[in-house]
Amino acid sequence: MELWFTEDQTRDVRISCRVKKVLFSGRSQFQEVAVYDTDEYGRLLALDNIIQTNIWDEFIYHESLTHVGLNTHPNPKKVLLIGGGDGGSVREIVKHKEIEKIVHVEIDQMVIDVAKEFFPELSSGFSDPRVEIIVDDGIKHVQENKNTYDVIMVDSPDPIGPAVGLYGDEFYRNVAGALKEDGLLVAQTESPFFNRDLISRVNATMKNIFPVVRMFLGIVPTYPGGAWTFTVGSKKYDPLEVETDKLPDLNTKWYSPQMHRSVFTLPPIFRELVKE
Amino acid sequence: MELWFTEDQTRDVRISCRVKKVLFSGRSQFQEVAVYDTDEYGRLLALDNIIQTNIWDEFIYHESLTHVGLNTHPNPKKVLLIGGGDGGSVREIVKHKEIEKIVHVEIDQMVIDVAKEFFPELSSGFSDPRVEIIVDDGIKHVQENKNTYDVIMVDSPDPIGPAVGLYGDEFYRNVAGALKEDGLLVAQTESPFFNRDLISRVNATMKNIFPVVRMFLGIVPTYPGGAWTFTVGSKKYDPLEVETDKLPDLNTKWYSPQMHRSVFTLPPIFRELVKE
Repeated sequence: MELWFTEDQTRDVRISCRVKKVLFSGRSQFQEVAVYDTDEYGRLLALDNIIQTNIWDEFIYHESLTHVGLNTHPNPKKVLLIGGGDGGSVREIVKHKEIEKIVHVEIDQMVIDVAKEFFPELSSGFSDPRVEIIVDDGIKHVQENKNTYDVIMVDSPDPIGPAVGLYGDEFYRNVAGALKEDGLLVAQTESPFFNRDLISRVNATMKNIFPVVRMFLGIVPTYPGGAWTFTVGSKKYDPLEVETDKLPDLNTKWYSPQMHRSVFTLPPIFRELVKE
Repeated sequence: MELWFTEDQTRDVRISCRVKKVLFSGRSQFQEVAVYDTDEYGRLLALDNIIQTNIWDEFIYHESLTHVGLNTHPNPKKVLLIGGGDGGSVREIVKHKEIEKIVHVEIDQMVIDVAKEFFPELSSGFSDPRVEIIVDDGIKHVQENKNTYDVIMVDSPDPIGPAVGLYGDEFYRNVAGALKEDGLLVAQTESPFFNRDLISRVNATMKNIFPVVRMFLGIVPTYPGGAWTFTVGSKKYDPLEVETDKLPDLNTKWYSPQMHRSVFTLPPIFRELVKE
Protein backbone atom coordinates (compact mmCIF):
# COMPACT_ATOMS: atom_id res chain seq x y z
CA MET A 1 0.00 0.00 0.00
CA GLU A 2 1.26 3.50 -0.88
CA LEU A 3 -0.34 6.13 1.33
CA TRP A 4 0.82 9.75 1.01
CA PHE A 5 -0.16 12.96 2.76
CA THR A 6 0.05 15.96 0.44
CA GLU A 7 -0.10 19.63 1.44
CA ASP A 8 -0.52 22.45 -1.06
CA GLN A 9 2.16 24.80 0.29
CA THR A 10 1.24 27.38 -2.31
CA ARG A 11 -1.06 27.18 -5.33
CA ASP A 12 1.85 25.81 -7.32
CA VAL A 13 4.01 23.85 -4.84
CA ARG A 14 3.18 20.69 -2.91
CA ILE A 15 5.00 18.67 -0.26
CA SER A 16 4.15 15.00 0.21
CA CYS A 17 5.22 12.50 2.80
CA ARG A 18 4.66 8.79 3.01
CA VAL A 19 2.18 7.73 5.69
CA LYS A 20 2.43 4.54 7.70
CA LYS A 21 -0.92 4.94 9.39
CA VAL A 22 -3.74 7.41 9.90
CA LEU A 23 -3.96 7.66 13.70
CA PHE A 24 -6.77 10.20 14.00
CA SER A 25 -9.10 12.11 11.74
CA GLY A 26 -11.87 14.36 13.00
CA ARG A 27 -13.60 17.69 12.56
CA SER A 28 -13.78 20.11 15.48
CA GLN A 29 -15.91 23.24 15.68
CA PHE A 30 -13.04 25.09 14.03
CA GLN A 31 -11.11 22.82 11.72
CA GLU A 32 -10.25 19.41 10.34
CA VAL A 33 -7.79 17.67 12.66
CA ALA A 34 -5.63 14.76 11.47
CA VAL A 35 -2.74 12.82 12.96
CA TYR A 36 -0.55 10.71 10.70
CA ASP A 37 2.31 8.41 11.53
CA THR A 38 4.80 9.19 8.76
CA ASP A 39 8.01 7.47 7.72
CA GLU A 40 10.19 10.56 7.54
CA TYR A 41 8.74 12.88 10.17
CA GLY A 42 7.23 10.52 12.71
CA ARG A 43 3.86 11.60 14.07
CA LEU A 44 2.49 14.62 12.27
CA LEU A 45 -0.43 16.94 13.11
CA ALA A 46 -2.30 18.55 10.21
CA LEU A 47 -5.03 21.16 10.64
CA ASP A 48 -7.17 21.75 7.55
CA ASN A 49 -4.56 19.72 5.67
CA ILE A 50 -1.69 22.04 6.64
CA ILE A 51 1.24 20.61 8.60
CA GLN A 52 1.25 22.23 12.04
CA THR A 53 3.90 20.19 13.73
CA ASN A 54 5.68 16.84 13.69
CA ILE A 55 8.01 14.91 15.95
CA TRP A 56 10.97 15.35 13.62
CA ASP A 57 11.42 19.12 13.33
CA GLU A 58 9.06 20.59 15.95
CA PHE A 59 11.83 21.58 18.34
CA ILE A 60 13.10 24.33 16.04
CA TYR A 61 9.80 26.18 15.88
CA HIS A 62 8.98 25.72 19.56
CA GLU A 63 12.41 26.66 20.90
CA SER A 64 12.47 29.73 18.64
CA LEU A 65 9.02 30.99 19.64
CA THR A 66 9.68 30.70 23.37
CA HIS A 67 13.30 31.07 24.48
CA VAL A 68 14.24 34.22 22.55
CA GLY A 69 11.50 36.21 24.28
CA LEU A 70 11.71 34.57 27.70
CA ASN A 71 15.46 35.15 27.79
CA THR A 72 15.03 38.78 26.71
CA HIS A 73 12.77 39.60 29.67
CA PRO A 74 14.98 39.69 32.79
CA ASN A 75 12.32 38.38 35.15
CA PRO A 76 9.25 36.77 33.52
CA LYS A 77 6.83 35.72 36.26
CA LYS A 78 3.50 35.48 34.47
CA VAL A 79 3.34 34.53 30.80
CA LEU A 80 0.62 33.88 28.23
CA LEU A 81 0.69 31.51 25.28
CA ILE A 82 -2.01 31.96 22.65
CA GLY A 83 -2.53 28.93 20.41
CA GLY A 84 -0.13 26.03 20.16
CA GLY A 85 -2.50 23.42 21.54
CA ASP A 86 -0.05 20.71 20.50
CA GLY A 87 1.92 21.55 23.65
CA GLY A 88 5.38 21.97 22.13
CA SER A 89 5.65 25.61 23.18
CA VAL A 90 4.43 24.86 26.73
CA ARG A 91 7.07 22.15 27.04
CA GLU A 92 9.76 24.74 26.30
CA ILE A 93 8.20 27.47 28.47
CA VAL A 94 8.16 25.27 31.60
CA LYS A 95 11.95 24.93 31.33
CA HIS A 96 12.16 28.50 32.68
CA LYS A 97 12.16 27.96 36.43
CA GLU A 98 11.64 31.65 37.27
CA ILE A 99 8.15 31.64 35.72
CA GLU A 100 5.38 31.37 38.32
CA LYS A 101 2.29 31.17 36.13
CA ILE A 102 1.75 30.03 32.53
CA VAL A 103 -1.68 30.75 31.03
CA HIS A 104 -2.27 28.79 27.85
CA VAL A 105 -5.28 29.91 25.80
CA GLU A 106 -6.15 27.52 22.98
CA ILE A 107 -9.39 27.82 21.06
CA ASP A 108 -9.75 24.16 20.04
CA GLN A 109 -10.22 21.46 22.70
CA MET A 110 -9.77 18.76 20.07
CA VAL A 111 -6.17 19.87 19.40
CA ILE A 112 -5.36 19.62 23.11
CA ASP A 113 -6.97 16.18 23.35
CA VAL A 114 -5.13 14.92 20.29
CA ALA A 115 -1.82 16.28 21.64
CA LYS A 116 -2.33 14.48 24.95
CA GLU A 117 -3.15 11.20 23.23
CA PHE A 118 -0.76 11.15 20.27
CA PHE A 119 2.06 13.60 21.06
CA PRO A 120 3.28 12.87 24.59
CA GLU A 121 6.71 14.26 23.59
CA LEU A 122 5.07 17.65 22.96
CA SER A 123 2.30 17.76 25.56
CA SER A 124 4.43 16.71 28.53
CA GLY A 125 4.44 20.28 29.88
CA PHE A 126 0.66 20.34 30.36
CA SER A 127 1.07 18.52 33.67
CA ASP A 128 3.33 21.23 35.13
CA PRO A 129 1.40 22.74 38.08
CA ARG A 130 2.17 26.29 36.89
CA VAL A 131 0.21 25.71 33.65
CA GLU A 132 -3.43 26.75 33.40
CA ILE A 133 -5.15 25.75 30.15
CA ILE A 134 -8.11 27.91 29.08
CA VAL A 135 -10.12 26.78 26.08
CA ASP A 136 -11.13 30.12 24.62
CA ASP A 137 -10.38 32.70 21.96
CA GLY A 138 -7.01 34.37 22.55
CA ILE A 139 -8.26 37.56 20.92
CA LYS A 140 -10.92 37.86 23.63
CA HIS A 141 -8.49 36.90 26.41
CA VAL A 142 -6.10 39.77 25.73
CA GLN A 143 -9.03 42.21 25.53
CA GLU A 144 -10.22 41.14 28.96
CA ASN A 145 -6.90 40.91 30.84
CA LYS A 146 -5.15 44.26 31.08
CA ASN A 147 -1.66 44.89 32.42
CA THR A 148 -1.26 41.22 33.39
CA TYR A 149 1.61 39.50 31.58
CA ASP A 150 5.39 39.82 31.34
CA VAL A 151 5.68 37.87 28.09
CA ILE A 152 2.99 36.89 25.55
CA MET A 153 3.74 34.33 22.86
CA VAL A 154 1.49 33.86 19.83
CA ASP A 155 1.65 30.38 18.31
CA SER A 156 -0.88 31.07 15.57
CA PRO A 157 -1.91 29.11 12.51
CA ASP A 158 -1.62 30.61 9.04
CA PRO A 159 -3.54 33.85 8.45
CA ILE A 160 -6.59 32.18 6.93
CA GLY A 161 -10.18 32.32 8.21
CA PRO A 162 -10.55 32.96 11.97
CA ALA A 163 -6.78 33.32 12.49
CA VAL A 164 -6.65 36.50 10.37
CA GLY A 165 -7.49 38.44 13.53
CA LEU A 166 -4.21 37.28 15.09
CA TYR A 167 -2.22 39.41 12.63
CA GLY A 168 -4.09 42.71 12.85
CA ASP A 169 -3.59 46.12 14.40
CA GLU A 170 -6.39 45.70 16.95
CA PHE A 171 -5.01 42.40 18.19
CA TYR A 172 -1.49 43.73 18.69
CA ARG A 173 -2.89 46.76 20.55
CA ASN A 174 -4.82 44.45 22.85
CA VAL A 175 -1.69 42.35 23.37
CA ALA A 176 0.19 45.51 24.31
CA GLY A 177 -2.62 46.31 26.75
CA ALA A 178 -2.42 42.85 28.33
CA LEU A 179 1.33 43.24 28.84
CA LYS A 180 2.79 44.96 31.87
CA GLU A 181 4.69 48.18 31.32
CA ASP A 182 7.93 46.37 30.55
CA GLY A 183 6.34 43.37 28.80
CA LEU A 184 7.09 41.89 25.41
CA LEU A 185 5.39 39.89 22.67
CA VAL A 186 6.80 37.18 20.42
CA ALA A 187 4.70 36.03 17.46
CA GLN A 188 5.33 33.62 14.64
CA THR A 189 5.05 35.72 11.48
CA GLU A 190 5.11 33.24 8.59
CA SER A 191 7.41 32.69 5.62
CA PRO A 192 9.83 35.40 4.47
CA PHE A 193 9.58 33.95 0.96
CA PHE A 194 5.85 33.42 0.57
CA ASN A 195 4.24 35.91 3.00
CA ARG A 196 6.29 39.01 2.30
CA ASP A 197 3.40 41.47 2.24
CA LEU A 198 2.05 40.13 5.53
CA ILE A 199 5.46 40.41 7.21
CA SER A 200 5.95 43.99 6.09
CA ARG A 201 2.48 44.96 7.24
CA VAL A 202 2.81 43.23 10.63
CA ASN A 203 6.22 44.80 11.15
CA ALA A 204 4.94 48.31 10.39
CA THR A 205 1.91 47.75 12.62
CA MET A 206 4.04 46.58 15.53
CA LYS A 207 6.38 49.55 15.14
CA ASN A 208 3.38 51.83 15.74
CA ILE A 209 2.74 50.08 19.04
CA PHE A 210 6.08 48.89 20.46
CA PRO A 211 9.30 50.90 20.82
CA VAL A 212 11.44 47.82 20.09
CA VAL A 213 10.51 45.57 17.14
CA ARG A 214 12.89 42.86 15.89
CA MET A 215 12.36 40.05 13.40
CA PHE A 216 14.32 36.83 13.66
CA LEU A 217 14.65 33.62 11.66
CA GLY A 218 14.29 29.91 12.15
CA ILE A 219 14.37 26.98 9.76
CA VAL A 220 11.36 24.67 9.64
CA PRO A 221 11.86 22.07 6.89
CA THR A 222 8.19 21.09 6.79
CA TYR A 223 6.91 24.67 6.44
CA PRO A 224 6.80 26.35 3.01
CA GLY A 225 10.19 27.67 1.96
CA GLY A 226 12.09 26.21 4.92
CA ALA A 227 12.85 29.62 6.46
CA TRP A 228 10.43 30.98 9.04
CA THR A 229 10.07 34.34 10.78
CA PHE A 230 9.23 35.37 14.32
CA THR A 231 8.76 38.94 15.49
CA VAL A 232 9.44 40.46 18.89
CA GLY A 233 7.46 43.54 19.94
CA SER A 234 8.79 44.90 23.22
CA LYS A 235 7.94 47.85 25.47
CA LYS A 236 11.39 48.04 27.03
CA TYR A 237 13.86 45.18 26.63
CA ASP A 238 15.82 44.65 23.42
CA PRO A 239 16.67 41.02 22.53
CA LEU A 240 19.94 42.26 21.00
CA GLU A 241 21.08 43.72 24.31
CA VAL A 242 20.82 40.48 26.27
CA GLU A 243 24.06 39.39 27.93
CA THR A 244 24.04 36.01 26.23
CA ASP A 245 26.99 34.61 28.20
CA LYS A 246 24.82 34.68 31.32
CA LEU A 247 21.93 32.68 29.84
CA PRO A 248 21.09 29.33 31.48
CA ASP A 249 21.44 25.99 29.69
CA LEU A 250 17.93 24.99 28.65
CA ASN A 251 18.71 21.59 27.16
CA THR A 252 17.85 22.73 23.64
CA LYS A 253 18.70 21.43 20.19
CA TRP A 254 18.24 24.61 18.16
CA TYR A 255 18.38 27.60 20.50
CA SER A 256 21.62 28.52 22.25
CA PRO A 257 23.16 31.71 23.67
CA GLN A 258 25.11 32.12 20.40
CA MET A 259 21.96 31.54 18.33
CA HIS A 260 20.03 34.08 20.45
CA ARG A 261 22.03 36.80 18.74
CA SER A 262 22.68 35.34 15.28
CA VAL A 263 19.04 34.58 14.43
CA PHE A 264 18.47 38.34 14.21
CA THR A 265 21.05 38.78 11.43
CA LEU A 266 18.93 39.01 8.29
CA PRO A 267 20.09 38.65 4.68
CA PRO A 268 19.41 41.75 2.54
CA ILE A 269 16.37 40.15 0.89
CA PHE A 270 14.70 39.78 4.30
CA ARG A 271 15.97 43.06 5.73
CA GLU A 272 14.05 44.93 3.06
CA LEU A 273 10.81 43.46 4.47
CA VAL A 274 11.34 45.24 7.77
CA LYS A 275 13.11 48.35 6.46
CA GLU A 276 16.21 47.81 8.62
CA MET B 1 -3.87 20.85 -18.27
CA GLU B 2 -2.19 20.03 -14.93
CA LEU B 3 1.50 19.35 -15.37
CA TRP B 4 3.65 18.79 -12.25
CA PHE B 5 7.34 18.09 -11.72
CA THR B 6 7.94 15.84 -8.72
CA GLU B 7 11.26 15.12 -7.02
CA ASP B 8 11.76 12.36 -4.48
CA GLN B 9 13.72 14.36 -1.89
CA THR B 10 14.08 11.26 0.25
CA ARG B 11 12.48 7.84 -0.04
CA ASP B 12 9.53 9.16 1.93
CA VAL B 13 9.25 12.87 1.03
CA ARG B 14 8.42 14.49 -2.30
CA ILE B 15 8.29 18.08 -3.51
CA SER B 16 6.16 18.97 -6.52
CA CYS B 17 5.81 22.15 -8.51
CA ARG B 18 3.40 23.10 -11.23
CA VAL B 19 4.96 23.29 -14.68
CA LYS B 20 3.91 25.75 -17.36
CA LYS B 21 6.06 24.25 -20.06
CA VAL B 22 8.82 21.71 -20.62
CA LEU B 23 11.54 23.78 -22.29
CA PHE B 24 14.18 21.10 -22.72
CA SER B 25 14.62 17.42 -22.09
CA GLY B 26 17.69 15.44 -23.10
CA ARG B 27 20.19 12.83 -22.01
CA SER B 28 23.88 13.67 -21.94
CA GLN B 29 26.74 11.23 -21.52
CA PHE B 30 26.36 11.68 -17.77
CA GLN B 31 22.76 12.42 -16.86
CA GLU B 32 19.21 13.32 -17.78
CA VAL B 33 18.92 17.09 -18.25
CA ALA B 34 15.56 18.88 -18.08
CA VAL B 35 14.48 22.51 -18.03
CA TYR B 36 10.99 23.40 -16.89
CA ASP B 37 9.23 26.73 -16.79
CA THR B 38 7.42 26.58 -13.45
CA ASP B 39 4.77 28.82 -11.93
CA GLU B 40 6.40 29.28 -8.52
CA TYR B 41 10.12 29.08 -9.22
CA GLY B 42 10.43 30.31 -12.80
CA ARG B 43 12.85 28.33 -14.95
CA LEU B 44 14.16 25.27 -13.19
CA LEU B 45 17.03 22.91 -14.06
CA ALA B 46 16.71 19.27 -13.01
CA LEU B 47 19.50 16.69 -13.42
CA ASP B 48 18.40 13.07 -13.08
CA ASN B 49 15.11 14.48 -11.77
CA ILE B 50 16.77 16.37 -8.90
CA ILE B 51 16.35 20.15 -8.73
CA GLN B 52 19.78 21.73 -9.27
CA THR B 53 18.81 25.34 -9.53
CA ASN B 54 15.97 27.69 -10.39
CA ILE B 55 15.53 31.39 -11.04
CA TRP B 56 13.65 31.96 -7.81
CA ASP B 57 16.07 30.87 -5.06
CA GLU B 58 19.38 30.28 -6.89
CA PHE B 59 21.03 33.42 -5.53
CA ILE B 60 21.21 32.02 -2.00
CA TYR B 61 23.18 28.94 -2.96
CA HIS B 62 25.46 30.74 -5.41
CA GLU B 63 26.24 33.72 -3.18
CA SER B 64 26.96 31.37 -0.27
CA LEU B 65 29.31 29.09 -2.19
CA THR B 66 31.39 31.93 -3.60
CA HIS B 67 31.56 35.09 -1.49
CA VAL B 68 32.35 33.56 1.90
CA GLY B 69 35.54 31.98 0.56
CA LEU B 70 36.54 34.76 -1.83
CA ASN B 71 36.19 37.33 0.95
CA THR B 72 38.18 35.16 3.36
CA HIS B 73 41.22 35.06 1.08
CA PRO B 74 42.84 38.52 1.17
CA ASN B 75 44.03 38.47 -2.42
CA PRO B 76 42.51 35.79 -4.68
CA LYS B 77 44.09 36.06 -8.13
CA LYS B 78 43.50 32.65 -9.66
CA VAL B 79 40.45 30.62 -8.73
CA LEU B 80 38.92 27.30 -9.76
CA LEU B 81 35.26 26.33 -9.86
CA ILE B 82 34.46 22.63 -10.17
CA GLY B 83 30.93 21.89 -11.37
CA GLY B 84 28.15 24.45 -11.45
CA GLY B 85 27.70 24.43 -15.22
CA ASP B 86 24.52 26.46 -14.81
CA GLY B 87 26.72 29.52 -14.40
CA GLY B 88 25.26 30.95 -11.20
CA SER B 89 28.51 30.58 -9.27
CA VAL B 90 30.57 32.10 -12.09
CA ARG B 91 28.22 35.10 -12.17
CA GLU B 92 29.00 35.73 -8.49
CA ILE B 93 32.75 35.04 -8.81
CA VAL B 94 33.22 37.63 -11.58
CA LYS B 95 31.95 40.33 -9.18
CA HIS B 96 35.36 40.11 -7.44
CA LYS B 97 37.43 42.57 -9.44
CA GLU B 98 40.75 41.50 -7.91
CA ILE B 99 40.51 38.06 -9.53
CA GLU B 100 42.64 37.72 -12.67
CA LYS B 101 41.76 34.22 -13.82
CA ILE B 102 38.70 32.01 -13.29
CA VAL B 103 39.00 28.38 -14.42
CA HIS B 104 35.65 26.66 -14.59
CA VAL B 105 35.79 22.88 -14.96
CA GLU B 106 32.42 21.31 -15.75
CA ILE B 107 32.09 17.71 -16.84
CA ASP B 108 28.89 18.04 -18.86
CA GLN B 109 28.80 20.22 -21.99
CA MET B 110 25.02 19.82 -22.16
CA VAL B 111 24.56 21.64 -18.84
CA ILE B 112 26.62 24.57 -20.11
CA ASP B 113 24.67 24.69 -23.38
CA VAL B 114 21.34 24.57 -21.57
CA ALA B 115 22.45 27.33 -19.18
CA LYS B 116 23.44 29.57 -22.08
CA GLU B 117 20.14 29.01 -23.86
CA PHE B 118 17.61 28.94 -21.00
CA PHE B 119 19.28 30.64 -18.01
CA PRO B 120 20.79 33.92 -19.23
CA GLU B 121 20.36 35.33 -15.68
CA LEU B 122 22.76 32.66 -14.41
CA SER B 123 25.17 32.20 -17.31
CA SER B 124 25.88 35.90 -17.89
CA GLY B 125 29.33 35.56 -16.29
CA PHE B 126 30.53 33.10 -18.95
CA SER B 127 31.31 36.02 -21.26
CA ASP B 128 33.71 37.65 -18.78
CA PRO B 129 37.17 37.54 -20.44
CA ARG B 130 38.76 36.20 -17.23
CA VAL B 131 36.67 33.01 -17.42
CA GLU B 132 38.07 29.88 -19.06
CA ILE B 133 35.62 26.98 -19.36
CA ILE B 134 37.15 23.49 -19.50
CA VAL B 135 34.81 20.59 -20.18
CA ASP B 136 36.48 17.87 -18.15
CA ASP B 137 36.43 15.93 -14.90
CA GLY B 138 37.25 18.18 -11.93
CA ILE B 139 38.76 15.24 -10.07
CA LYS B 140 41.35 14.87 -12.83
CA HIS B 141 41.95 18.63 -13.07
CA VAL B 142 43.03 18.98 -9.45
CA GLN B 143 45.32 15.94 -9.79
CA GLU B 144 47.08 17.53 -12.75
CA ASN B 145 47.38 21.14 -11.54
CA LYS B 146 49.57 21.45 -8.47
CA ASN B 147 50.11 24.58 -6.39
CA THR B 148 48.01 26.66 -8.79
CA TYR B 149 44.94 28.21 -7.16
CA ASP B 150 44.16 30.67 -4.39
CA VAL B 151 40.56 29.55 -3.96
CA ILE B 152 38.80 26.39 -5.18
CA MET B 153 35.00 26.12 -5.05
CA VAL B 154 33.19 22.81 -5.46
CA ASP B 155 29.66 23.16 -6.82
CA SER B 156 28.95 19.45 -6.83
CA PRO B 157 25.75 17.47 -7.35
CA ASP B 158 24.49 15.07 -4.68
CA PRO B 159 26.87 12.26 -3.68
CA ILE B 160 25.35 9.68 -6.02
CA GLY B 161 27.10 7.82 -8.86
CA PRO B 162 30.10 9.61 -10.39
CA ALA B 163 29.85 12.56 -7.94
CA VAL B 164 30.72 10.31 -4.95
CA GLY B 165 34.39 11.00 -5.75
CA LEU B 166 33.83 14.70 -5.00
CA TYR B 167 33.31 13.94 -1.29
CA GLY B 168 36.24 11.63 -0.60
CA ASP B 169 39.62 11.81 1.12
CA GLU B 170 41.61 11.47 -2.12
CA PHE B 171 39.73 14.32 -3.77
CA TYR B 172 40.23 16.74 -0.88
CA ARG B 173 43.95 15.85 -0.77
CA ASN B 174 44.22 16.63 -4.46
CA VAL B 175 42.34 19.88 -3.93
CA ALA B 176 44.81 20.79 -1.20
CA GLY B 177 47.63 19.96 -3.63
CA ALA B 178 46.11 22.19 -6.32
CA LEU B 179 45.90 25.10 -3.84
CA LYS B 180 48.77 27.44 -3.18
CA GLU B 181 50.32 27.41 0.28
CA ASP B 182 47.76 29.88 1.62
CA GLY B 183 44.83 28.65 -0.47
CA LEU B 184 41.37 27.61 0.62
CA LEU B 185 38.51 25.38 -0.49
CA VAL B 186 34.76 25.92 -0.22
CA ALA B 187 32.48 22.98 -0.98
CA GLN B 188 28.75 22.51 -0.78
CA THR B 189 28.25 19.69 1.72
CA GLU B 190 24.55 18.78 1.53
CA SER B 191 21.68 18.82 4.01
CA PRO B 192 22.34 18.96 7.77
CA PHE B 193 19.05 17.12 8.27
CA PHE B 194 19.27 14.37 5.67
CA ASN B 195 23.01 13.87 5.06
CA ARG B 196 24.32 13.91 8.62
CA ASP B 197 26.71 10.97 8.26
CA LEU B 198 28.20 12.44 5.09
CA ILE B 199 28.75 15.83 6.75
CA SER B 200 30.47 14.32 9.77
CA ARG B 201 32.70 12.21 7.57
CA VAL B 202 33.60 15.08 5.21
CA ASN B 203 34.32 17.33 8.19
CA ALA B 204 36.62 14.80 9.83
CA THR B 205 38.37 14.15 6.51
CA MET B 206 38.96 17.86 5.88
CA LYS B 207 40.31 18.32 9.41
CA ASN B 208 43.02 15.77 8.59
CA ILE B 209 44.07 17.90 5.62
CA PHE B 210 43.40 21.57 6.44
CA PRO B 211 44.35 23.43 9.62
CA VAL B 212 41.16 25.55 9.46
CA VAL B 213 37.82 23.83 8.79
CA ARG B 214 34.52 25.68 9.24
CA MET B 215 30.98 24.70 8.29
CA PHE B 216 28.38 27.34 7.49
CA LEU B 217 24.69 27.41 6.64
CA GLY B 218 22.42 28.67 3.91
CA ILE B 219 18.72 28.24 3.24
CA VAL B 220 17.67 26.76 -0.08
CA PRO B 221 13.88 26.29 -0.12
CA THR B 222 13.94 23.90 -3.08
CA TYR B 223 16.56 21.59 -1.58
CA PRO B 224 15.56 18.86 0.90
CA GLY B 225 15.05 20.23 4.39
CA GLY B 226 15.52 23.89 3.41
CA ALA B 227 18.80 24.26 5.34
CA TRP B 228 22.02 23.63 3.44
CA THR B 229 25.67 23.35 4.47
CA PHE B 230 28.92 24.55 2.97
CA THR B 231 32.36 23.75 4.33
CA VAL B 232 35.54 25.81 4.19
CA GLY B 233 38.89 24.01 4.30
CA SER B 234 41.71 26.51 4.55
CA LYS B 235 45.50 26.30 4.79
CA LYS B 236 45.88 29.67 6.48
CA TYR B 237 43.00 32.16 6.53
CA ASP B 238 40.07 31.78 8.93
CA PRO B 239 36.70 33.05 7.66
CA LEU B 240 35.83 34.07 11.24
CA GLU B 241 38.80 36.43 11.39
CA VAL B 242 37.81 38.50 8.38
CA GLU B 243 37.37 42.22 9.10
CA THR B 244 33.84 42.28 7.78
CA ASP B 245 33.46 46.06 7.98
CA LYS B 246 36.05 46.39 5.22
CA LEU B 247 34.30 44.06 2.76
CA PRO B 248 33.15 45.55 -0.57
CA ASP B 249 29.49 45.83 -1.59
CA LEU B 250 28.87 42.97 -4.03
CA ASN B 251 25.26 43.74 -4.93
CA THR B 252 23.98 40.61 -3.24
CA LYS B 253 20.58 39.55 -1.94
CA TRP B 254 21.65 36.93 0.61
CA TYR B 255 25.31 37.48 1.48
CA SER B 256 26.38 40.57 3.39
CA PRO B 257 29.26 41.49 5.71
CA GLN B 258 26.96 40.77 8.69
CA MET B 259 25.91 37.45 7.21
CA HIS B 260 29.56 36.50 6.56
CA ARG B 261 29.95 36.00 10.27
CA SER B 262 26.49 34.84 11.35
CA VAL B 263 26.21 31.95 8.87
CA PHE B 264 28.90 30.17 10.91
CA THR B 265 26.79 30.19 14.08
CA LEU B 266 25.38 26.67 14.24
CA PRO B 267 22.51 25.42 16.39
CA PRO B 268 23.47 22.60 18.77
CA ILE B 269 21.94 19.92 16.54
CA PHE B 270 24.29 20.92 13.70
CA ARG B 271 27.30 21.64 15.91
CA GLU B 272 27.33 18.01 16.98
CA LEU B 273 27.93 17.02 13.33
CA VAL B 274 31.25 18.82 13.30
CA LYS B 275 32.23 18.29 16.93
CA GLU B 276 32.56 22.00 17.68
